Amino acid sequence: MTSVTIMEVSPRDGLQNEDALVSTEDKLKLIDRALVAGCKRIEVTSFVNPKVVPQMADAEAVCAGLPQRGDVRYTGLVLNQRGYDRLRATERLNEAGLVIAASDTFGERNQGMDIDAGLAMAKDILRQGRDSAFPVQVTIAVAFGCPFEGDVPLERLVHMVTELVVEEPVEIALADTIGVGVPQQVEETFTALKDIVGDIPLRAHFHDTRNTGIGNAYAAVKAGVQTLDASIGGIGGCPFAPNATGNIATEDLVYMLNRSGIEHGVGLENLIDSAQWLEGVLDKSIPSSLLRAGDFLPKP
Amino acid sequence: MTSVTIMEVSPRDGLQNEDALVSTEDKLKLIDRALVAGCKRIEVTSFVNPKVVPQMADAEAVCAGLPQRGDVRYTGLVLNQRGYDRLRATERLNEAGLVIAASDTFGERNQGMDIDAGLAMAKDILRQGRDSAFPVQVTIAVAFGCPFEGDVPLERLVHMVTELVVEEPVEIALADTIGVGVPQQVEETFTALKDIVGDIPLRAHFHDTRNTGIGNAYAAVKAGVQTLDASIGGIGGCPFAPNATGNIATEDLVYMLNRSGIEHGVGLENLIDSAQWLEGVLDKSIPSSLLRAGDFLPKP
Repeated sequence: MTSVTIMEVSPRDGLQNEDALVSTEDKLKLIDRALVAGCKRIEVTSFVNPKVVPQMADAEAVCAGLPQRGDVRYTGLVLNQRGYDRLRATERLNEAGLVIAASDTFGERNQGMDIDAGLAMAKDILRQGRDSAFPVQVTIAVAFGCPFEGDVPLERLVHMVTELVVEEPVEIALADTIGVGVPQQVEETFTALKDIVGDIPLRAHFHDTRNTGIGNAYAAVKAGVQTLDASIGGIGGCPFAPNATGNIATEDLVYMLNRSGIEHGVGLENLIDSAQWLEGVLDKSIPSSLLRAGDFLPKP
Repeated sequence: MTSVTIMEVSPRDGLQNEDALVSTEDKLKLIDRALVAGCKRIEVTSFVNPKVVPQMADAEAVCAGLPQRGDVRYTGLVLNQRGYDRLRATERLNEAGLVIAASDTFGERNQGMDIDAGLAMAKDILRQGRDSAFPVQVTIAVAFGCPFEGDVPLERLVHMVTELVVEEPVEIALADTIGVGVPQQVEETFTALKDIVGDIPLRAHFHDTRNTGIGNAYAAVKAGVQTLDASIGGIGGCPFAPNATGNIATEDLVYMLNRSGIEHGVGLENLIDSAQWLEGVLDKSIPSSLLRAGDFLPKP
């Protein structure tokens, strides 16, 4: 029996692209719902420029309101030193999640850093984390394709991961930021990286933009990925495909894992209930399949 | 390089559950669009009771209007002898597609036959097909789960397929009629059946009800399935999950196959254009992911 951990990212990646500003109170309710469902890892916010991402302007307030839970790993996302310093100053998070891009163009547009600059920044912050015994993990964005440059060669990911491993991140993740990956690519990619990372655990972040997200998640688990990002309700649209669906829905992921005998510790009914609640908060239809179809419950 | 054949099922399974009656003319336009896109197998209609399925009442008229194409395999679906006789009388189709159910309750409700009665009917019609050199294939419905009885044991599928193989159908398909299967189950199931069917090709029919359809399609290809059913626009809702999405969208399937290097011969842009056209015909939003997100086109 395989088991995986689910990182709930709705409070950050899920809400980030929503036009409607969600109150800090509702964000904390969403986090509480994830906790009630059984999530042990939650990406609660990001420490980014509030002018660029107004939805995340209350990062410090969200952190201040987090329930103290010894058994839960709260993460915040950072793109640079300034974000990392803000995160550390809250003293409420269990780790920092760095993001760097797998293409020069995306990195420059998203955080003003090409690949080399992103790697240098990441390695520097990883060193700071180790020096102060604070866990830092790294996500490589647009790892399965870039909206500006197209395909990302596997050799580039191998190079980036090889560089990162030197500084011993607590985890390395690949993100399909724009939802273009397919299961075969996911399996090949993670299989190739597994030898390089050694004992460092792998995480995967998928968007369901082109309907491959759940298949990709299964392929990632089969290739040895230990943690999967997902977002209640499947919220988290992509600015590069404005009408498309978002992150893989946590309830859709959980359905697939349940029916595959892969353990994860999160309750499906709680998630469906929270997706419905979220639809009310956002006042719009959200992409969750399980919210529409319900679980498959064998009749006696 | 693997290759698969796509069976376009929008004219039958796609439209079957639509409330709005679609004209014979529009059905023929849909079939023509599938042909233009490159589809070489099309399920054009079903020969069922028009009181139960009014959308298929024009089965004979659709067949009469089919473009004569030596390179295309037109299929009609039948549930019993009466349907088979109607299909044969049209003299316009290249094969008959029988359906029987993998659960007694579903079979009784859908066609008034439990498993044994369904097998007997299928074997009888398969013999008639062989005697007159007319190709007949068989689909086992609710093969991955039944809305009334729950899980379908693999041993039952093994038993049914073993019985069917004796009468040499031109193909055996498994259908996830209510969209409950997951990739692991799909791979295990088809792998187990492969030894039994020998040279008889396998087909798979997936619904995307719970967001597992594209992952299931990939798992099926990996397990040796040669043909995949799909429906332009992802139409084809399920009466057991009235708000849910339908068949896997042909354009979503093609995107996944393209990015996996699996050949199929169908044009993605044509399909997306047809999904958009279909949205107009049905006057409602349809579930296609590629219609919303578009292809991933690497920029030079």
